[in-house]
Amino acid sequence: MPALRPYHRDLSYSYAPGFFPCMEALKKRPDSVSRVLVHSKAESSDILPELLALCRERSIRVETADRALARISQKDNVFAAAVFAKQEHPLQKDSNHLVLYHPGDKGNLGTILRTALGFQFLNMAVILPAADLHDPQVVRASMGALFSMRVQSFTCFEDYHAAYPEHALYPFMLQASIPLDEAAANAVSPFALIMGNEGAGLPAEYLTLGQPVRIPHNPAIDSLNLAVAASIGMYAFSKKHNI
Amino acid sequence: MPALRPYHRDLSYSYAPGFFPCMEALKKRPDSVSRVLVHSKAESSDILPELLALCRERSIRVETADRALARISQKDNVFAAAVFAKQEHPLQKDSNHLVLYHPGDKGNLGTILRTALGFQFLNMAVILPAADLHDPQVVRASMGALFSMRVQSFTCFEDYHAAYPEHALYPFMLQASIPLDEAAANAVSPFALIMGNEGAGLPAEYLTLGQPVRIPHNPAIDSLNLAVAASIGMYAFSKKHNI
Repeated sequence: MPALRPYHRDLSYSYAPGFFPCMEALKKRPDSVSRVLVHSKAESSDILPELLALCRERSIRVETADRALARISQKDNVFAAAVFAKQEHPLQKDSNHLVLYHPGDKGNLGTILRTALGFQFLNMAVILPAADLHDPQVVRASMGALFSMRVQSFTCFEDYHAAYPEHALYPFMLQASIPLDEAAANAVSPFALIMGNEGAGLPAEYLTLGQPVRIPHNPAIDSLNLAVAASIGMYAFSKKHNI
Repeated sequence: MPALRPYHRDLSYSYAPGFFPCMEALKKRPDSVSRVLVHSKAESSDILPELLALCRERSIRVETADRALARISQKDNVFAAAVFAKQEHPLQKDSNHLVLYHPGDKGNLGTILRTALGFQFLNMAVILPAADLHDPQVVRASMGALFSMRVQSFTCFEDYHAAYPEHALYPFMLQASIPLDEAAANAVSPFALIMGNEGAGLPAEYLTLGQPVRIPHNPAIDSLNLAVAASIGMYAFSKKHNI
C-alpha cells in the first residue's frame, strides 16, 4: 500500500473525515473506498462496531493510523476517515439540476451539498474554476452528502448546456425580474437552477438566459449568502418534484 | 484613551473588522463607536475617504494602528475596524421576531443576522447560553447587519415569552406536523419564529408550544444546517410583512 499523503487537489483520492461522513462513503459508494483509517482512541466509540462490520462486509482494509489522521484532519478530534477515489458522475438527463458557477468557498459547497440532498436535487454541475469539491473540508461540511450525489464538472457553462440542452434554465440574479415564488410555481421539469459566485454573482449576460429569478429581499443587504440563496431556491423549486 | 485589548467576551466593547462592517457601524450606530482603527496600508483603498468623512462628521477619533488591527483580526487583511460599545435593544412589541435558542456557531449567527436583515426580521431574541453575538467574527460574518438589528438576550425562553406574550409562537422542529408553507400562509403578525441549537434542536416540550413547524425535506439528511433552516423559515414567513 502506498503511503497516504496530506490532501492536495491533484491527488486522485481524498479523505472523508469523521465517523458520519466515513459511514456515508461506506454505505453509498463502497466501491470508491480503498481503506479506512481509525484512531487508537476510537475504541470507546459507539459507532465503531458498525463501521468495522461494514468494512468487513465489503472487504475494505482498516488501519489504526493516529498520525495519518492528525495530518489529514488538521484537528485532533477526527477518529475515523475513509480514503476514497475521486469520481465524477454524468448527470441524469431527466432529473432537475443544480448548477454552481465558480463557487469559491468550501464551507458553502459543503452546506449546499447537504441541502441539495435534503431537497432532492441529486444532480449537481460545477462550472470551473471552483473550490475543490473533494476537499476533506467540503466532504465533512456536507456530512457525507457528497456520496449520495451525482456531481459533474465543466470547464464552461456552454459545455454544461450542450450536454443537457433540454433543461429549462433559471439563473438566480439580483437584477432579475421574476420573483422566486412565481418562477417556482410555473416551472416544468427538467429544470436547472443556476447560482453565481459568492462575490461576483453571475455575469450580466445570464439575464438573457432562460428565466432569470430574483429572491425578493430588503435592499438593506447587498445580497444573501450563497448557501442561503441556493437553499431557498432549492426549497421553493422542490415542490415541483415531491420530496 | 485606554489601550485596546484582544477581544474577549467579558469586555464591554468589541470590534467591527473590515471596511464594510465598519461603515455600517458608523452609519447605523454612530453613538456606539468610540474610535476607528485604520491600517497604514489602507491609503490605497477607495472606501477610505468616505470612512474618514463619516468619522469627521460624527467627531469619531481615527487612529493608524497596524499592530492592534493584526491582533484583533487574526488575519492580515483587515485594514479598518470600528471599536464599538456592546449594546442590547429591547425588541419592538409589534414587530415579528426571530428567536434563537442556544445557537452555538459564530458563522451561523453572522449568516442569520445578515439574512434576518434581508427578510425584514429586525428584532432577534437570543436564549442563553449562546455563541457571543458581539464577537468580531460574528460581526464580520454578518457584514455589519448587527448594527441594523435590535437584539436582546434572555437567560431562558420563559423570560422572552413573559416579555412578549402577544407573539404567536412557531417553533421549528423535525417532529412537527405543520409544513412550513401552510404555517406561513396562515400566520398573523406579530409572530415569533423559534430555532433550536445546531446539534440538539429544540427540546421535545416545544412541540406543545404554539404551532410547531416542519420544513419538509428528504429523510436522507438528518437535518438542515441551522442558518439554512432559519433562512428558509424567514423567507417563507417574510411574505406576511411585505419587504
